[in-house]
Amino acid sequence: MSQVAVAASLLRSRALDVVLKDTMKTIHALKMGFALVLAFLLVLVHASYAQLGSHAVWAIMTVIVVFEYTIGATLSKGLNRGVGTLLAGLLAIVASELAEKSGSGVGHPILVGFIVFTIGGVVTFAKLWPSLKSYEFGFRSFLLTFSLIMVAEYREGDPLGTAINRFWVILLGAFIGVSVNVFVLPCWAGNELHHSLVTNFFSVADSLEVCVNEYLQGSVLERFPSKVFMEKIVEDPFYKRYRPTLMSASKEESLAGFASWEPPHGRFKVVKYPWHLYVKVGAVLRHCTYSVVALHGCLQSGIQAPLKVRKLFHEEIRAVGVECACLLRELGKQIEDMQKGNPATLLKGVEHAIERLQESLYYCSYLLVRDEEGCLEDAKGNVAVSVIPEVTMLRNVHSMGSQLRSIDNLELSCGHEKCSNDWEESQCLKRTYTWPLRPRDQLDYAREPLLGQRVRIVKSASALSVGTFATLLMEVALRLDYVAEAVQELGECAGFTDFKKDVSDS
Amino acid sequence: MSQVAVAASLLRSRALDVVLKDTMKTIHALKMGFALVLAFLLVLVHASYAQLGSHAVWAIMTVIVVFEYTIGATLSKGLNRGVGTLLAGLLAIVASELAEKSGSGVGHPILVGFIVFTIGGVVTFAKLWPSLKSYEFGFRSFLLTFSLIMVAEYREGDPLGTAINRFWVILLGAFIGVSVNVFVLPCWAGNELHHSLVTNFFSVADSLEVCVNEYLQGSVLERFPSKVFMEKIVEDPFYKRYRPTLMSASKEESLAGFASWEPPHGRFKVVKYPWHLYVKVGAVLRHCTYSVVALHGCLQSGIQAPLKVRKLFHEEIRAVGVECACLLRELGKQIEDMQKGNPATLLKGVEHAIERLQESLYYCSYLLVRDEEGCLEDAKGNVAVSVIPEVTMLRNVHSMGSQLRSIDNLELSCGHEKCSNDWEESQCLKRTYTWPLRPRDQLDYAREPLLGQRVRIVKSASALSVGTFATLLMEVALRLDYVAEAVQELGECAGFTDFKKDVSDS
Repeated sequence: MSQVAVAASLLRSRALDVVLKDTMKTIHALKMGFALVLAFLLVLVHASYAQLGSHAVWAIMTVIVVFEYTIGATLSKGLNRGVGTLLAGLLAIVASELAEKSGSGVGHPILVGFIVFTIGGVVTFAKLWPSLKSYEFGFRSFLLTFSLIMVAEYREGDPLGTAINRFWVILLGAFIGVSVNVFVLPCWAGNELHHSLVTNFFSVADSLEVCVNEYLQGSVLERFPSKVFMEKIVEDPFYKRYRPTLMSASKEESLAGFASWEPPHGRFKVVKYPWHLYVKVGAVLRHCTYSVVALHGCLQSGIQAPLKVRKLFHEEIRAVGVECACLLRELGKQIEDMQKGNPATLLKGVEHAIERLQESLYYCSYLLVRDEEGCLEDAKGNVAVSVIPEVTMLRNVHSMGSQLRSIDNLELSCGHEKCSNDWEESQCLKRTYTWPLRPRDQLDYAREPLLGQRVRIVKSASALSVGTFATLLMEVALRLDYVAEAVQELGECAGFTDFKKDVSDS
Repeated sequence: MSQVAVAASLLRSRALDVVLKDTMKTIHALKMGFALVLAFLLVLVHASYAQLGSHAVWAIMTVIVVFEYTIGATLSKGLNRGVGTLLAGLLAIVASELAEKSGSGVGHPILVGFIVFTIGGVVTFAKLWPSLKSYEFGFRSFLLTFSLIMVAEYREGDPLGTAINRFWVILLGAFIGVSVNVFVLPCWAGNELHHSLVTNFFSVADSLEVCVNEYLQGSVLERFPSKVFMEKIVEDPFYKRYRPTLMSASKEESLAGFASWEPPHGRFKVVKYPWHLYVKVGAVLRHCTYSVVALHGCLQSGIQAPLKVRKLFHEEIRAVGVECACLLRELGKQIEDMQKGNPATLLKGVEHAIERLQESLYYCSYLLVRDEEGCLEDAKGNVAVSVIPEVTMLRNVHSMGSQLRSIDNLELSCGHEKCSNDWEESQCLKRTYTWPLRPRDQLDYAREPLLGQRVRIVKSASALSVGTFATLLMEVALRLDYVAEAVQELGECAGFTDFKKDVSDS
């Protein structure tokens, strides 16, 4: 009994939490109550009930069915219901006239049954037609009204009266629902879409930056055991950040569909505001996010570059990450403030950072593949021979402080750590190279000279993995170009400020 | 006029096409017509109408509202409607007793209004509660019934009669809808989920294989101009293949939700069949697909490895691709046939292929970063010096025919192509390196000695990009391990055949 009490108090405190935090939902619930009371007035007030009679119930039902969270959804449902009812009424009157012609014999019910079967089948089929999917509710309303009027025709003999009455009462109900929704603390689907897109920009920028920072700190994210994979991945702080962007496709599409039903409002004053471009920007951003997912995958990968190799490109990788995140935030802010910016200027920084990373990869790639003992032992001299001409050339031709610094560092660290870190590295390898089917203990063959070869092989792949991270990061940057262009297109069509006026009304 | 005729005939032929091809939809439409006629019999047949009166309309409305494409959806809607109606009836009777107590003065309508407001608000709030989302329809039915009974109480004074009548008639309607759906050519949500998951396995396997093959053929996929990006990407044959898997999250979840309402049927005979594990397998497969998306990104990347570098790892990359695709198809087939397999045996081949690719990367990584003129000119001798010890060692320690062959080939091809292909390569570079903001003509500086440096830098990144492709491919393979384990778990819980019997009924 006390358990129930605890659960109840827990639920109460959680419900109170939601009420306080999620104000929009609470407001929506209150609005629904208000609309319902308004519709009930038709029944409660004597004068209106005398007029409408039991048909008043239809107004209440319409309010309940039509009232949705956003204005766009309510309008679309209301219009669908209205148009569906109107068309169904017209068709039902024709059909009942036809059925009546068959006389009062056994032919009449059979004809009614046949008509109902045909109309039911055709409407249901149309409802499943892909391009008519957004009118699903209209088809349902059509079928409801059609059936009701056919029943009225058959049993009460007044299809026209029923049709007209039902239509007006439903219109009244839809009017009540829509009015309350629009005029009492409105919640626009367009607003929701706008904010969700802006949020996605910022969260992708965050996850990109965090990914890059973690990588440069040498983090190796835990690869979840597959038994708890599903539970863990949902809680994963990285995944949490970009998950909404990955999953937002259908949400964005439905919000844009609802928003297109909404009249110009608030900051969205352009007639025929290009909501479909929000879906496009969202899709292009998602395309870019897939590359961020791949970056995140690098952090969890079974094959990892050691920290000292990551440090080689520390500045360049960080620069690309920072520039990309900046660009994403800038684009997000442009949409948020509805202001136009110049994508060329914005992309310049990213482009420059990519070039530096490429140069750095070029000059350091030799060191990358040499970063293992086998090479240092077998061809100690060659390293110096082949690196130094490059370095000298570099010094003469360019002035690339950072590259030189990192090359020198590597030379030092290679020489210094080669012996002492031998054991540590093979330990570290155990941790990072966890192809799950192989028991970890087997990796002890690292001590044996012949099988030590395999460890070196894995380590070589490890060093190359820094190239993978860099290439994927560049891919993110390249895809940002699409995002920037899509945002620019949106800005032009939606009449963002700081732009020639004549385009804003196209 | 003739245009309309043409359009009409076009529509007719398309509709006929859909009718013939999409048999399930046609069947569904016919079933709906049939169920509707059955419900109409309540009105058309004199005896039943005498019993039910105008309440019979509720049965028809319930059929229309409850009848859904899959059995699970119909059952869930039917049960939601039934339970919602029942609870609403009970509550409404209590509420109307309360309201009646207030007498027939002005207090009565005010009390009714207050009750309606409170219940409407609370139910709407509950409807928006995330964990109660799947009962949305139940809440709506609750509100409908509650309102109707309150109206009946206020105006007709017989809430109990209305509640009981409405409940039975709605139950009858739900029974008709569910029976027709279950007993006439049933369409189970579980079946749909099963097939969609299996299809996803095969299509991911296909896209992986096609990606690998295209890469090895040296394809550089067109990077769509951002203006037509959205239109093109939807038509992209690669994207088309894996898109359903990427987008199937919400579909799988809702199908699993519906399937869990369905009784054991067809091949899914286990009580409490683990449909939620289908969602898990789908999510893990999607996790793996993100890596395939990254592979696809490599094909479109601005920085591309030349064909001869790709050829270096031709056999090994192809082997990993083939093994992974095989494993995916095998897992898909296991689910399709509902048979258990041994994941360890299945993963062996993939593991072996990964090892070979790693070894190959190790032995050839030197050649990878040297594959450009700067190096060949500056340190011609060193290549031989540093490669040959490795080769000799290789010959003595292992017998790796393919690696040796490819190293020899590269030496040949490097020497042979170095001069003649110089111009061709810079042309090729133009084609592949298309950072969009830079006019292509600018790349003509490749001829100038100082700026030629930049071209080499890009080319060095190009060569490294083969490492990226290989690493990503290995990542796909590593993630397959999760997929295999999830499928195994599904097999155990769902009682796939070829497994100890005592587990099959857990």
